[in-house]
Amino acid sequence: MNTTLMAQEAAQSPHVIAQQLKQNLPVCEQLVQKIKTFNPAMVYIIGRGSSDHAGVFAKYLIEVELGIPVSSSAPSVHSVFHKSLKLDKALVLVISQSGGSPDIISQAKAAKDSGALTIALVNTPNSPLSEVVDAELPLCAGEELAIAATKSYLSTLSAILQLVACWKQDQALLKALNQLPALLSIAIQEPNKLTREFIEELAHCVVLGRGFGYAVSREIALKLKEVCGIHAEAFSSAEFLHGPVTLVEKSLSVIDVSAFDESQDAHETIMTDINSRGSRTKEIGFTISGAHPRCVPLLVLQRFYLDIEQIARELGLDPDKPAGLKKVTKTL
Amino acid sequence: MNTTLMAQEAAQSPHVIAQQLKQNLPVCEQLVQKIKTFNPAMVYIIGRGSSDHAGVFAKYLIEVELGIPVSSSAPSVHSVFHKSLKLDKALVLVISQSGGSPDIISQAKAAKDSGALTIALVNTPNSPLSEVVDAELPLCAGEELAIAATKSYLSTLSAILQLVACWKQDQALLKALNQLPALLSIAIQEPNKLTREFIEELAHCVVLGRGFGYAVSREIALKLKEVCGIHAEAFSSAEFLHGPVTLVEKSLSVIDVSAFDESQDAHETIMTDINSRGSRTKEIGFTISGAHPRCVPLLVLQRFYLDIEQIARELGLDPDKPAGLKKVTKTL
Repeated sequence: MNTTLMAQEAAQSPHVIAQQLKQNLPVCEQLVQKIKTFNPAMVYIIGRGSSDHAGVFAKYLIEVELGIPVSSSAPSVHSVFHKSLKLDKALVLVISQSGGSPDIISQAKAAKDSGALTIALVNTPNSPLSEVVDAELPLCAGEELAIAATKSYLSTLSAILQLVACWKQDQALLKALNQLPALLSIAIQEPNKLTREFIEELAHCVVLGRGFGYAVSREIALKLKEVCGIHAEAFSSAEFLHGPVTLVEKSLSVIDVSAFDESQDAHETIMTDINSRGSRTKEIGFTISGAHPRCVPLLVLQRFYLDIEQIARELGLDPDKPAGLKKVTKTL
Repeated sequence: MNTTLMAQEAAQSPHVIAQQLKQNLPVCEQLVQKIKTFNPAMVYIIGRGSSDHAGVFAKYLIEVELGIPVSSSAPSVHSVFHKSLKLDKALVLVISQSGGSPDIISQAKAAKDSGALTIALVNTPNSPLSEVVDAELPLCAGEELAIAATKSYLSTLSAILQLVACWKQDQALLKALNQLPALLSIAIQEPNKLTREFIEELAHCVVLGRGFGYAVSREIALKLKEVCGIHAEAFSSAEFLHGPVTLVEKSLSVIDVSAFDESQDAHETIMTDINSRGSRTKEIGFTISGAHPRCVPLLVLQRFYLDIEQIARELGLDPDKPAGLKKVTKTL
């Protein structure tokens, strides 16, 4: 039944990531030399939509593994308020599938002009973005035609993992990345985690994770919106307790994204509290024996993409044609 | 009818902010000396819930007015993953009403230990947080008893405005702040912008603003959740076009928070697009003649707090007792 573009492209992830990791290892090693020479005091991330969500994963990864503070761009500062930031101590990561959005290119150019070291993570070869940055880390996901990004998003996370593993000289993570494609293939064979029964008739819900689980919850919530028209909002499970939890009193549907890492105990304690208040909760996180904790969120996403594509079809929706969306959105 | 704590405290904002601005002017001038000597390459903000949302306003303000990149803390990096960041080039602003949350205090301490200049914006005098930071900018909002923060949130924004105005030596903004309390009083007398008719029967909605309007949309969405049990999610109107806009195809309710600043044209263009797709939209932004654009979001919030309190009562809810919430939430 893998007939939609979305299903086909999501299923290509293990293959394209295997190629990417092999091809990019020397690229990452070269980039790390540049980065270490530059010695950034911070990392600043430019991206929109799914690329912005990949930036959330990058924030957790770089802060947790390298201890360097990470900031995400608020695009209007440059495009609307016409302010260029002082980024001369910053490594700037520009994340873009197309490498062609004028607002992203303009932000990247301003960052370089202010003295930042700029690296583009971009899927389209020879894009206009490549012209303005110092260096490029190609995503190597191949052409992506479905409006809902899948393999390009997973390829962005794997590229960030490889760059950080090289930067930290983390042999365990580098070794784990070699096994990532095989684990993604196993995730494709896993039983469905999210089902039509949970999604049907759902108008809105929340998606809760912690740390890296929260990072991918942002992407899961966006896909629930795009592919199934469900108003899903992602929260850190801890932040959810600071106010939003009151929604559970009206019988809220909750998608629980456990990442099975160092945050699992804290996350489970909160989820137990939330579930005891009467939420309708579905756990979609899982892990596979031997998986490195930093790779688990990618496995969860790999399975989720296929689940949500199938559910959309079962509900009579076309995953390749979300109402009202285009592949490239241009905004100021 | 101002009988609830929430209504009483919201209505105290003009008075407490007038006192705060008067009392804090010499404090801000001293802090700015420290900051300029330290010469931060970035600003790092620590806060949760409404304080985190005040941090979003601070991000836009500092980036737009001073050109210094701003990052928001992901609390789990410290509390769950036990990583201390390298913040020796950072001005760290710690925002907390109580100054007593152990996770916030622990993050502030780690930041100071790493060499950051740490300043606490805190409402409770002599709090444990004051013991661990380099300096304090008191919020002076007085005791706040309602679970839904109102005057303490507005006082946080005015404190940030005053600090940035002093830092930038922006005479126009400093002068505008002198008029802010009077404008807040006018906002209290303005006609209601949000009505029971729009809110009744509403299960979920989105709140859209741009730049500073987006910053306060985050707080507006939280209050809709806390006080009325409505699942409201805030977006930058530009970001909303990158996927979430598909929700409008199912007839989505939208709250439009115009801030009447440099972003107004870009925001209006997008809102016209969204409205033309059939959204059910309510505009709650407004401005008052002579108001400085950076003060407008505070006026919108001042009116909104009173509107939402009244609507909650009209719907038979107690604004002072949101189901399932406590004033101080402790999380890792």
